[in-house]
Amino acid sequence: MLLIVGTVRIPVENVARARPAVARLIEATRAEDGCLKYGFAEDVLDPGLIHISEAWRDQAALEAHFASAHIAEWRTVWREIGIRDRDLRLYEVGEGRAL
Amino acid sequence: MLLIVGTVRIPVENVARARPAVARLIEATRAEDGCLKYGFAEDVLDPGLIHISEAWRDQAALEAHFASAHIAEWRTVWREIGIRDRDLRLYEVGEGRAL
Repeated sequence: MLLIVGTVRIPVENVARARPAVARLIEATRAEDGCLKYGFAEDVLDPGLIHISEAWRDQAALEAHFASAHIAEWRTVWREIGIRDRDLRLYEVGEGRAL
Repeated sequence: MLLIVGTVRIPVENVARARPAVARLIEATRAEDGCLKYGFAEDVLDPGLIHISEAWRDQAALEAHFASAHIAEWRTVWREIGIRDRDLRLYEVGEGRAL
């Protein structure tokens, strides 16, 4: 399984404006084959810092995601709302264990 | 390195009330030896769903964290504010790669 964990920053004044596009992205991505988890969340202490958490079955599923129409739309939104400080890392993991 | 990723749910009406205790927990935890990352973030589509993202150097650092005074305080707050649906998993990972 592949985990993607990290953050991006949305200018605070654009967080509300970004919400409908984020909702479209999340809904379309969760419907993809091989998407196990996909969530966006705003840091409780640092407004505008968006934590992204993804889990994918395998590399093929992730590559299909990157080539999707909703990711192309998201890249346009990304520029329009001025997302920056992209800091995402990908990890190959096993099942892990419940904590 | 150890990654902890997952969610808990804070009743929506208690999110604001939980904030000072969450801030104390995060500040004290980030100051711990071996804590590489520690963040709490609220889902952008599902208010009250809190994404937790942690990275620890090793198991010893994580065990010291679980035995800390601030985690003991947090467990009391946890009950008072009615946190539920704890769904956290721990993964042993390498460096990963920037995405």
